[in-house]
Amino acid sequence: MSAPTRNPVERVADSMLHTGPAEVAGWLAGLADRWWMRVERADLGELAGWQVEPGTGNLRHHTGKFFTVESLSVDLPGAPVPHWRQPIINQPEIGILGILVREIDGVLHCLMQAKHEPGNPNGLQISPTVQATRSNYTGVHQGKAVPYLEHFRSPERVVIDIRQSEQGAWFYRKRNRNMVVEVDAVEEREGFRWLTLGQIAELMSVPDLVNMDARTVLACLPGGGAALARAAADDFTSALVRSADPASPSVHGLGDILSWITEVRTHTDLRVERGPLAGLPDWLYDDGRIAHRTGGFFSVVGVRVEAGGREVAAWSQPMVEPVGTGVIAFLVKAIDGVLHILTHARTEPGYADVTELAPTVQCVPENYAHLPGRPRFLDEVLTSSRVRFDTVLSEEGGRFLGARNRYMVVETDADVAPDDPRYRWLTLHQYEELLRHSFYVNIQARSLVLCLRSLIPRGRA
Amino acid sequence: MSAPTRNPVERVADSMLHTGPAEVAGWLAGLADRWWMRVERADLGELAGWQVEPGTGNLRHHTGKFFTVESLSVDLPGAPVPHWRQPIINQPEIGILGILVREIDGVLHCLMQAKHEPGNPNGLQISPTVQATRSNYTGVHQGKAVPYLEHFRSPERVVIDIRQSEQGAWFYRKRNRNMVVEVDAVEEREGFRWLTLGQIAELMSVPDLVNMDARTVLACLPGGGAALARAAADDFTSALVRSADPASPSVHGLGDILSWITEVRTHTDLRVERGPLAGLPDWLYDDGRIAHRTGGFFSVVGVRVEAGGREVAAWSQPMVEPVGTGVIAFLVKAIDGVLHILTHARTEPGYADVTELAPTVQCVPENYAHLPGRPRFLDEVLTSSRVRFDTVLSEEGGRFLGARNRYMVVETDADVAPDDPRYRWLTLHQYEELLRHSFYVNIQARSLVLCLRSLIPRGRA
Repeated sequence: MSAPTRNPVERVADSMLHTGPAEVAGWLAGLADRWWMRVERADLGELAGWQVEPGTGNLRHHTGKFFTVESLSVDLPGAPVPHWRQPIINQPEIGILGILVREIDGVLHCLMQAKHEPGNPNGLQISPTVQATRSNYTGVHQGKAVPYLEHFRSPERVVIDIRQSEQGAWFYRKRNRNMVVEVDAVEEREGFRWLTLGQIAELMSVPDLVNMDARTVLACLPGGGAALARAAADDFTSALVRSADPASPSVHGLGDILSWITEVRTHTDLRVERGPLAGLPDWLYDDGRIAHRTGGFFSVVGVRVEAGGREVAAWSQPMVEPVGTGVIAFLVKAIDGVLHILTHARTEPGYADVTELAPTVQCVPENYAHLPGRPRFLDEVLTSSRVRFDTVLSEEGGRFLGARNRYMVVETDADVAPDDPRYRWLTLHQYEELLRHSFYVNIQARSLVLCLRSLIPRGRA
Repeated sequence: MSAPTRNPVERVADSMLHTGPAEVAGWLAGLADRWWMRVERADLGELAGWQVEPGTGNLRHHTGKFFTVESLSVDLPGAPVPHWRQPIINQPEIGILGILVREIDGVLHCLMQAKHEPGNPNGLQISPTVQATRSNYTGVHQGKAVPYLEHFRSPERVVIDIRQSEQGAWFYRKRNRNMVVEVDAVEEREGFRWLTLGQIAELMSVPDLVNMDARTVLACLPGGGAALARAAADDFTSALVRSADPASPSVHGLGDILSWITEVRTHTDLRVERGPLAGLPDWLYDDGRIAHRTGGFFSVVGVRVEAGGREVAAWSQPMVEPVGTGVIAFLVKAIDGVLHILTHARTEPGYADVTELAPTVQCVPENYAHLPGRPRFLDEVLTSSRVRFDTVLSEEGGRFLGARNRYMVVETDADVAPDDPRYRWLTLHQYEELLRHSFYVNIQARSLVLCLRSLIPRGRA
């Protein structure tokens, strides 16, 4: 076993440039003929294996594992809504989202999985090699062993291995371990396929295809380097490629960015208390589900799931079903020839550390019927004629039912004051530096990092 | 106002090499003639301004500010003691520990303060320019304005600005903002003095002189660079200087270190619940204080404080009074000519994120009369003939009464397996990389980083 000698960032960049027919549509269609998943709505009070806890009304699995649905009481003085209570998923276990990589003919390939999840709007999606909660792999499921899991529990060569947060509006401090592990050779099982990063980048523009877990892991894989410099085709892509280069100038130094994050985290007086699901003032338990009295935000619903083909299984579970399709957008601008991303320091009640870096715009426009104000930059995003990326992608289908967001990258001439309390211009390389560490970049921004990288021209294969 | 053009790391290294008579002893003696602090023990139930909360027995200030003394219930399955309960200080406010720096005759100087704290065993200690809790600077104290605070609330040029943890055995998720801010010129008030980093390094070998808050801030200031290369005097200091150089080889890459931290944090099943101070099974309220039934670990005690000279003040407060003098040691070894530090991944109940990097040895030997096992490497540290640094230093005198630890740097030939679950060899530069971010390096290790740097030969001034 010999370690590869090329610079890892260069190898990633090289794989980003390699494309060629992936024939993923035909492969998925073939699998979908044989593998199926049926999802029916069910009353939260009648989910097999789940209990409504006496007293609190919390939803919990009879084993005490997986997750619970509880509530949060949130105080955020000075915010447009300074106090609220809401249901929340509490899943303290840290799962593994892992992708195996290997070189095939000198080019890095990722082992991607075609996977059904009950919340997926369209069936199979391109997923990481492994998506496993701790309950998955410690046998609470009593299902089959998770394929390839052993490569992440005793890894050969770790490429990345970092805990990152998930949706802080729906999860209480949920964190998953994002891993990329290199292997010399493993068998390609049915339902798995080796793809280059360039092939995956092409799939990013297909609606609801590359799943959230794949996006977050791939976003953590830094891919700048000299290989990319050969890829630029026009002013926009030149600026994008330079944005991934650590040698390019940036509006703010990384030290200043870190100081800004410290300032925001220090001065945001977020107070969060966990509480019982029963008795939330603005939330109604009706018709077997829990919904906001306005009909906005999200509901907690129950589903009964049956799956067949690869493995036969049946289970029930609660899920979060959001209202409407969200808008998640980066406004970007070339500054001194280097593309910069207008970044928002966003506070969500479920974050482990108060505030994370978020897209310029992240909202569900429908909800603003029920909320004061209108999100900054939303109207520019929705009316711009300079849209570089615009694809609807799904959020995690294991916990969210039909949760879809429109991911957008939009060029702008807008600016913010250099000392704006909540916005800064960052380069792609600065994102990559921060993504080496936990809890700086939120899950929506991580997806957008991948969307943005997918705009680097390919086709050298 | 022009930004300095020299590389900041080089400027720090240069200041580390500049020494010369600081005449600190005479300066402190002169101040001590005029400034005094009297500390008397007092019954916890009779502290002016403090209340024993009915029901919980928690100690709280009548304003609800400053801090409370509560309890933690801790579960750590697999540990020698898998469950315990203990008193804990809960201080959710993030304070500022700030040092002003400026160039004098081209050399960076730090504005250090001579400061009394009730817990100091010996009176005045060398402290940061500013040590302020949020209650301090939002007027709850009703005392005088904190001198120089405005430079940290609206900083001119931020050099470092990062939240770091404090003692996780005594504090529940306490974090302070460690700041260094550069100014062009400010007045040197009485009780403050400009010192080079080299002068402070010389003071590190004086017992109980450089206080904990000064140590943690200065440890976060990276000081490698080419300037240091001229400083080496023998094999040990050559290896030490190379350890601060990012270009030197290291046993593990930073990515592997981060993956190891992810692994430990993921698989340590620490569960911590806050609870009432009253009714802790192994803790006795007796004679106006709360002590462990064995007499070990620490007590919660009350003090009445009177201060005069600079400002007249009187107050009462609870404090933590530990038993015995601790041993806090780095075992170090040159590997391929680069000094490496044997680093322990330590779990403490009050950490915000489960586990931090800690000294090779961190314990109070007396407590092992009450605990199973003997700390790994303790006997080697206590019997070694290759001791490079050995000074007793105090912990924060605002919360801890007479808390002292013997800080040691000891050369070793010991080794650990490359995949030891809890130990890794790190270079000084890797510590500096991790110190750019929050909650990787614990407060004891931060002090030792400064002790280790103080061994770099000086004398170019």
